[in-house]
Amino acid sequence: MTVVAVDAMGGDNAPYEIVKGAVDAINSSKDLSVKLVGIKSSVEEELAKFTYDKDRITVVEATEVIETSEHPVKAISRKKDSSLVVALRLVRDKEADAFVSAGNSGAILAGGLGIVGRIKGVERPAFGAIFPTRKGATLLVDSGANVDVRSSHIVQFAKMGTVYMKHVVGIENPTVGIVNIGAEEEKGNALVKECFPLLKECSEINFTGSVEARDIPEGNTDIIVCDGFVGNVILKLYEGLAKTLIDIIKEGLMSTFVSKIGAALALPALKGTIKTFDATKYGGAPVLGLKGLVVKCHGSAKSVEIKNALDQCMAFVAADINGKIEQNLILEKNEEKES
Amino acid sequence: MTVVAVDAMGGDNAPYEIVKGAVDAINSSKDLSVKLVGIKSSVEEELAKFTYDKDRITVVEATEVIETSEHPVKAISRKKDSSLVVALRLVRDKEADAFVSAGNSGAILAGGLGIVGRIKGVERPAFGAIFPTRKGATLLVDSGANVDVRSSHIVQFAKMGTVYMKHVVGIENPTVGIVNIGAEEEKGNALVKECFPLLKECSEINFTGSVEARDIPEGNTDIIVCDGFVGNVILKLYEGLAKTLIDIIKEGLMSTFVSKIGAALALPALKGTIKTFDATKYGGAPVLGLKGLVVKCHGSAKSVEIKNALDQCMAFVAADINGKIEQNLILEKNEEKES
Repeated sequence: MTVVAVDAMGGDNAPYEIVKGAVDAINSSKDLSVKLVGIKSSVEEELAKFTYDKDRITVVEATEVIETSEHPVKAISRKKDSSLVVALRLVRDKEADAFVSAGNSGAILAGGLGIVGRIKGVERPAFGAIFPTRKGATLLVDSGANVDVRSSHIVQFAKMGTVYMKHVVGIENPTVGIVNIGAEEEKGNALVKECFPLLKECSEINFTGSVEARDIPEGNTDIIVCDGFVGNVILKLYEGLAKTLIDIIKEGLMSTFVSKIGAALALPALKGTIKTFDATKYGGAPVLGLKGLVVKCHGSAKSVEIKNALDQCMAFVAADINGKIEQNLILEKNEEKES
Repeated sequence: MTVVAVDAMGGDNAPYEIVKGAVDAINSSKDLSVKLVGIKSSVEEELAKFTYDKDRITVVEATEVIETSEHPVKAISRKKDSSLVVALRLVRDKEADAFVSAGNSGAILAGGLGIVGRIKGVERPAFGAIFPTRKGATLLVDSGANVDVRSSHIVQFAKMGTVYMKHVVGIENPTVGIVNIGAEEEKGNALVKECFPLLKECSEINFTGSVEARDIPEGNTDIIVCDGFVGNVILKLYEGLAKTLIDIIKEGLMSTFVSKIGAALALPALKGTIKTFDATKYGGAPVLGLKGLVVKCHGSAKSVEIKNALDQCMAFVAADINGKIEQNLILEKNEEKES
C-alpha cells in the first residue's frame, strides 16, 4: 500500500479538482491510500460529492494555506500549519510515502529541502519534468528548481534523471543530452562547455552529446539536462506554444462553413493526435534528490493530472528511486575517498 | 536604390534558392539592386534560369566558400576570398548598403564584427530575430550572438530592439520585457535580477517587466530580451515545436478515410491559420549594432525567406536604423560624461 499526502489546498483549482483527482486515483487502484491535507470543512464538503472506499482516504487538518504569490521560504517558516508544511511533515515522519501538490513551486522546493531533506551526496535537488514528444516522452532536469548552477550539479541531474527514467519509466540505458545551441562540443556558454567533458567521462550515464532546442520535440533523447532557468523556459514555452498552436488550429477549423464540416469529420482522428502532446498525462514533476518523494503538479492542474501524479507516486515508491539515487551517489563518494 | 550584397554560396540550399530569392526580390521592387557574391560559374548557371532586369543583378566573384561546420573566426581569417568575406567587404567599403546570408551564423557575426565593425558605443552586437505570435510578431534580442553576457549588454539589446521595432516594423513606443521564470521582480537568475532595475530605470525604452516563456506565443510584448543562449533555445524550440505539431496534425488529418475527407474540406481555412505561424515571412535576423546592415537567414532558407530578407533590408536602410542606434547610444555616452 502506497500512502500519499496530498495538498488539498494548493493550485488554482483547489480543493475541488484535487479532491476529485484523489478519489479517481483511489477508485482506479487498490494499492493506494491518500491523506488529504487542508482545511477540514472545505475538503470534506468536496469529498461528500463522491463515492469511494472511505478506508483509503483520510482528511488531515491544516488551518493555513500558502498562496502562489507568497515568498517561498518566508511562507514555509511562517505558516507552520499550512497544508503544504503539514503534508511534508507526514513524509518526513514516514506517515506518508509521498507528497503531491499543485501549489507554490518555490514553497514545495523550500519545504522539501527544509522538512524532508536532501539525500546524502546530492548537492542540489532538481525538478524533473516529463513532457510529451513525437517519439514518447523526455525527462527535463532541472525544469526550474535551481536557476544558477555549477557543472557538478548538472552531472548529478544527469545521474538522478537516469535512475528515474530507468526505474520509473522503464527505459533500459536511457540517453542523456545537454541543452545546447549547436551540435558541436565547442559550442555553448561557459557552463555547457564546462559540463561537456564531465558528462562524457561519467560512466553511470549514457551521454550522447548536445541537444539543440529545435530537436527537443522529436524526442530522440530520453533525458535532457540544463540549468533550472533554461529548463523552466523550455518547459513553459513548450506548454504555451503547444496550447497556442492547438487553439489557432481549432479556430482555423471553425473559420468557414465548409471547414466546420471538415472539422466535424476530422476531429475524432485529430483528437488522438493532439492527445499525444498532452502534458497532463505524465502527472507532475518529482523533486529528484530529496529523502522522500515530493511531486509538483501544474498550478492549473485538474483532477486528471492529480490522478496521474498519484499513479506516478506508486511507480516511484515501488521502484525505490530515492534509495537508488542515494546508492548511486554514495558509491561515488566512496570512489572519491578511495582515489 | 538599396544595394544588397548577397552570399550566394551560404546555406543548405545555395546557390539555387539564394539566386531565386534575389531574382524574386528584384522582380517585385524597382528600388533594389543585388550583388550576388560567389563562385561566378555556379551563380551564373542558376541566374540563366530566370528572367529579370539585368542592370540590377551583378555577380561578384569569390572563389572560396565557408561551410556551416567551420570554426567561425578561423574561417573568416583563412578564407579571405570566401563569398561571406568578400560580401562583407562590399558593405564596409560602402559598395553595398546591406549583406544577406544563410551561411554559418558564427562566421557572419565574426565577419560582421571584424570587417564591418561595431557602432561606437555598442558593447555587443546581437541577433534580433522576429518570430510570429498570435498577435503578430515579437523581436527577440539576443537570439544567439552572445552566449555569456553582462546586464549592461541586455540593456543595450533593449535599446537597439526598440529602435528596430519603432522604425522598421513601425510600432510606436514598443514594449520591452525580459525573459523570466516568473512574473515577480524577485524571480529569476542572477543576471535577470541584475538587469531588472537597470531596465526599469532606462528612460529610452518602454519596459513592462518579466515575460514568462509560456506567454511568449501570445505576443503581448513587442521586444523580449535575454542572453543569447536562452534566446537561441527559445527561437529554435519555437521553430522546432511549431513544425512538429503541424506535422502531427497533418498526420492526424490523414490517418483515417473519414478524416481525409474532413481534411480536404478544412485545409484551405487551416492553411491561412498555419501561415500566421510561418517564421520565414519575417526574412532574417539582423545583427543589431554593426556599422552596416548584416542579415542572417536560416541555414535552411528557401527563396521566399531570401526575398523577404531583401525586402527587410530596404526598410532597414530607408529607416537608417544604424544611424538611429548610433545616435541613441552616443547620446547616452554624453550623458555619462556630463554626470
